[in-house]
Amino acid sequence: MNAEIIAVGSELLTPHRQDTNSLYLTEQLNDLGVEVRFKCIVGDDREGLTAAAKLAMRRSDIIIVSGGLGPTEDDLTREAVADALGLELRRDPEIAAKLEERFAKRGMKMSANNAKQADVLTSAAALPNSLGTAPGQWIGGKYDGQERLLMLLPGPPYEMKAMFEAECIPRLRARVPVQHIATRTFKMAMMPESQVDARVAPIYKTYTDVETTILAGAGEIQLHLRCRKDSQPEAEARVEELSEKIEDELADSIFSRKGETIEQIVSYLLQMRSMTLAVAESCTGGLLAERITSIGGSSRYFLGGAVVYSNELKTQFANVPKALIDQHGAVSREVASAMAEGIRKRCVSSYGVGITGVAGPGGGSEQKPVGLVYIALAGEEGTQVVERNFPGDRKRIRQFATQQALEMIRRALL
Amino acid sequence: MNAEIIAVGSELLTPHRQDTNSLYLTEQLNDLGVEVRFKCIVGDDREGLTAAAKLAMRRSDIIIVSGGLGPTEDDLTREAVADALGLELRRDPEIAAKLEERFAKRGMKMSANNAKQADVLTSAAALPNSLGTAPGQWIGGKYDGQERLLMLLPGPPYEMKAMFEAECIPRLRARVPVQHIATRTFKMAMMPESQVDARVAPIYKTYTDVETTILAGAGEIQLHLRCRKDSQPEAEARVEELSEKIEDELADSIFSRKGETIEQIVSYLLQMRSMTLAVAESCTGGLLAERITSIGGSSRYFLGGAVVYSNELKTQFANVPKALIDQHGAVSREVASAMAEGIRKRCVSSYGVGITGVAGPGGGSEQKPVGLVYIALAGEEGTQVVERNFPGDRKRIRQFATQQALEMIRRALL
Repeated sequence: MNAEIIAVGSELLTPHRQDTNSLYLTEQLNDLGVEVRFKCIVGDDREGLTAAAKLAMRRSDIIIVSGGLGPTEDDLTREAVADALGLELRRDPEIAAKLEERFAKRGMKMSANNAKQADVLTSAAALPNSLGTAPGQWIGGKYDGQERLLMLLPGPPYEMKAMFEAECIPRLRARVPVQHIATRTFKMAMMPESQVDARVAPIYKTYTDVETTILAGAGEIQLHLRCRKDSQPEAEARVEELSEKIEDELADSIFSRKGETIEQIVSYLLQMRSMTLAVAESCTGGLLAERITSIGGSSRYFLGGAVVYSNELKTQFANVPKALIDQHGAVSREVASAMAEGIRKRCVSSYGVGITGVAGPGGGSEQKPVGLVYIALAGEEGTQVVERNFPGDRKRIRQFATQQALEMIRRALL
Repeated sequence: MNAEIIAVGSELLTPHRQDTNSLYLTEQLNDLGVEVRFKCIVGDDREGLTAAAKLAMRRSDIIIVSGGLGPTEDDLTREAVADALGLELRRDPEIAAKLEERFAKRGMKMSANNAKQADVLTSAAALPNSLGTAPGQWIGGKYDGQERLLMLLPGPPYEMKAMFEAECIPRLRARVPVQHIATRTFKMAMMPESQVDARVAPIYKTYTDVETTILAGAGEIQLHLRCRKDSQPEAEARVEELSEKIEDELADSIFSRKGETIEQIVSYLLQMRSMTLAVAESCTGGLLAERITSIGGSSRYFLGGAVVYSNELKTQFANVPKALIDQHGAVSREVASAMAEGIRKRCVSSYGVGITGVAGPGGGSEQKPVGLVYIALAGEEGTQVVERNFPGDRKRIRQFATQQALEMIRRALL
């Protein structure tokens, strides 16, 4: 079965707010074996919402509408869904009485507009709201000959979650066929998306029963596998078989099999080998240190480092000879090496990293364009330097450069 | 005119990823006086995307589709939109040649699947992609008798933004009727949201024709004003009047009036006063240096710094006496001061910052709980230290601590 989520509210169509309810709902639905096929965001606009609900009823098995159930004039979900489904709204005397009671308890008189929260679609079951005033609604039945499940839920996340958990999950569990789903995630660093795809597509394409998704970030590719079968062992076996072939193909390019970040993997490896790390950064300006120390407990293997933006500090903190900078320039293979070796020596660490480059937008030249970065790793076995020309803006170049450094550390520790 | 944004990508229908492009696009469209009426999120699903594009062409004046323009089999936006509009795709030889050249420049051979990025809809203008391989497309014309503007943009945010700014905004400006909208943004650091609202709500509530929104982040509050009138001077005058009252109330708590980040403001102030900066970070692990150097040209005032995670490095790079650490502990007012003064001396900078604290999740004690951070600023006039107990997780505590440091630098420079 597949689902569609409609988030209602004009504030969700401004530059400042985002629908987050759908992330929670997607996770819950996926656990039940239901895929989300569409998400829509509609303002407090009766006509627009009616059209969105009609379309959803045509194309999706399960429709969840969140928001627009409150007492104000802007709250139009009930009316719009009634229009879309050709149903009437009737005022539920029991709910109306409860609403009045709720206000009375707080010593307030219920205003007339609040009463509309007791309007329920004919054929709908009202869903009690333990944390707010607006009840939800549940409708199941045929629509244009197709079996459909429709839920109206409140917009505030804590009300929505409590209601979905208490009222909707048990109902869905009784109606959605039991699913057996197996999943795997692989992550690779510093490989182009097209290269990963060219290598693994011939493999995963022969597994038409396993859904394979490739996600690309700055210097990171994720491969998600997902398989659904009549039994759990069957699903697991199928995903496992494909996984083994992908692992054979990509081998040690894969840094993570369980969703870990590359910072976490570097953390595991350094601790496993009882190694320590120090970094000297120029163009990345502290981003590498920041990424490494984003892991709790990183003080066990990360000693520290220097952000050596000025040439003087390259000499003072990372022992780079002034003559070397004068001869080759601050952005050079030689200076990157010297930074890695110098910081390793100064911090007495197992490994030292040196990064120097042109992050832009200014500072580039024909010989040394924006995006040119040297990344060096010094260890007991010697020093390696990589020269790269990274695409993108300052932020992306810095992200790429630190990703390259983390990947070099990881490979050195394998 | 109204707009609809369609974000394409199966990853946006998982619990792990969210469409963020639409926030930027909404902001840009609003500036042009265009309201966003619908947002849709569709997977890599040709049929679903075709239906979404058809619906959008029926109900919206401007349609922006982002994502699905890459080289993989999953990238189906071109094909789906061609289906929806009843148009053909033709391979553009010029674009194909440029793609090949791009690969050749990096010493790579272009794989066959990359060529489909040169497929352009008949009647569309190709939009050059300065930061990636996939060009965008622009189509304007009648659809079912209605004037429509349709844009296909790449999914990666930095590519999408660069293309929208360079290619789409000028085209939209020439086609969207001129609107008269005046806006103001105020930003404040390290003030609680409730405090800001208590002070300014009595003012802005008397301006019912100016839309006022308060947004809260980690250590930062934003206040957005927006007013639409029949003429620009009228809109500006009204927003200006309210702005002056808000500025009187919040005074120098406001760090930005034009949307600048606090990093940018600190950058302006340091350059204006010809001052330089160096930082010594423990618990923030390089985040402060990273935020400062995220600004292009920061080498003019930022000399560098040290990430002194270990006690030895606090002594070696920031001149903190070992005895001081032994006496007060690494997380103490005294050590923060010594770090700020030490790094200032070592780097010969106008200002020095020292940060030491417990970012968690481990490492806290009854005396020094997770969230306790000392932030010191040393300058010619002496050294000030602030002790704070920040709420939240490791990431949030580090964000708060660096925000506090930036606010201290800003206030020192006023």
